[in-house]
Amino acid sequence: KQLQVTPAFRNMASVAKKPKKSMDALEDESEALEALDSCQNEIDALNEKASEEILQVEQKYNALRKPYYQKRNEIIQRIPSFWVTAIVNHPQLSRILEEEEEECLQFLDKLEVEEHENIKSGYWINFYFDENPYFENKVLTKKFNLGAVNNETPVSTSTPIKWNPDRDLTKTLPKKMAAAGRRKRHLQYRTFFEWFTDNNDPINDDIAELIKDDLWLNPLQYYLVPDVEVEQEDDEDGEGEDDFGEEADEEEEAEEVEDEEEKAS
Amino acid sequence: KQLQVTPAFRNMASVAKKPKKSMDALEDESEALEALDSCQNEIDALNEKASEEILQVEQKYNALRKPYYQKRNEIIQRIPSFWVTAIVNHPQLSRILEEEEEECLQFLDKLEVEEHENIKSGYWINFYFDENPYFENKVLTKKFNLGAVNNETPVSTSTPIKWNPDRDLTKTLPKKMAAAGRRKRHLQYRTFFEWFTDNNDPINDDIAELIKDDLWLNPLQYYLVPDVEVEQEDDEDGEGEDDFGEEADEEEEAEEVEDEEEKAS
Repeated sequence: KQLQVTPAFRNMASVAKKPKKSMDALEDESEALEALDSCQNEIDALNEKASEEILQVEQKYNALRKPYYQKRNEIIQRIPSFWVTAIVNHPQLSRILEEEEEECLQFLDKLEVEEHENIKSGYWINFYFDENPYFENKVLTKKFNLGAVNNETPVSTSTPIKWNPDRDLTKTLPKKMAAAGRRKRHLQYRTFFEWFTDNNDPINDDIAELIKDDLWLNPLQYYLVPDVEVEQEDDEDGEGEDDFGEEADEEEEAEEVEDEEEKAS
Repeated sequence: KQLQVTPAFRNMASVAKKPKKSMDALEDESEALEALDSCQNEIDALNEKASEEILQVEQKYNALRKPYYQKRNEIIQRIPSFWVTAIVNHPQLSRILEEEEEECLQFLDKLEVEEHENIKSGYWINFYFDENPYFENKVLTKKFNLGAVNNETPVSTSTPIKWNPDRDLTKTLPKKMAAAGRRKRHLQYRTFFEWFTDNNDPINDDIAELIKDDLWLNPLQYYLVPDVEVEQEDDEDGEGEDDFGEEADEEEEAEEVEDEEEKAS
């Protein structure tokens, strides 16, 4: 916002209520305001410089991290079902993943978050898929252009998915869910592919942010069983009361963890 | 969160469902997990270093800004009613300021935000008052210790106010407001001094954050009439439709702006 140092202060009203000021006092006030304006400009300039330096640090580390992320991706490709497992284990991401989508993400071979060189301006999330029965694409990308540069309007776009006949999960899944009368979960997006294809509100895309700022930072922690659970299994027959609330949310996936519970008991 | 590389992966369940893997395949997977863990540790270490460098930049600029803030405070003290005007003009802060509190804040001579040397660990907001009919204190400080260091619990504390007899605005104001049957505004805090004395939720103290991250960064912009309004006065008799919504919120303060409107017409 551009500001003007004009004599039209809101406090003129209150000034008017007070005993009249001498011309000297008013002149000093006016001088003080000019001095204040130039002092504030110096502070603003420092803030600008601070932001720039911080951006530089972030860019430097982005470049330093890049080879590690590449190496990490190569290692991950040696571990079957790594990404789908990490997503299934992620407390928030798992909530948008429908069972059939989980089957589809078994073919997710590589996930990649690419930040723009000016990291404030946006990022891409690339999903690389093996050949699969659902769609023809090898890569599905959701691109975020957050427009910090040049004050562009924030937009996101997603690769159009070339679904195989009758395998379009954005069409078949909602129908199935409606037919089964399943209550909606309290979430902005109902399914993974609904999230992927929805570009209505790019600056409030919680799922994209979770992928970028949480899953991508350390997917291993989600692939592995969290500490807490391991400790609870060691507890005397502990049924894991602490995360009972979470489990209750996931009743629908109950079948999928049965094997695991058999193992634990 | 501490993580362990244990053989208890959640995906054991799904692995079990699949055709049995050869010992070789399992060994490779296990090797890959170890490589992944060490690669992730290197990424974590880089992230740690990035955070430290960013903190250093912030500390450097905090030190560089300090003399300008001091100079700014000296200049501001030459401008009568500066802080109370800036607060009254601030769209959010003004909403917690009751009329009688505004009178009290006319004695607010200096405002200061002091960040801890480790800026993540907290900050103080100092309100310096001239001698006034409300309380004896010369300085009212609200201190935030956000406990980023050593994982302390976040706490805030406020200087106990030595109110003069019958001038305790935390007691007289709520009574008056209740007597007048005034509906509460939709805000966490109802009055300025209720905010100041309330330390129940230091990490979600919106008002403190507005003072620190908005008002303190550039109080001049709030002291001055925003551009928008000036332009609207130049418009043909413009009644300022754009911010009519805001004005409607402030009906209660209508008397206070009458003088100003007279001047404008």
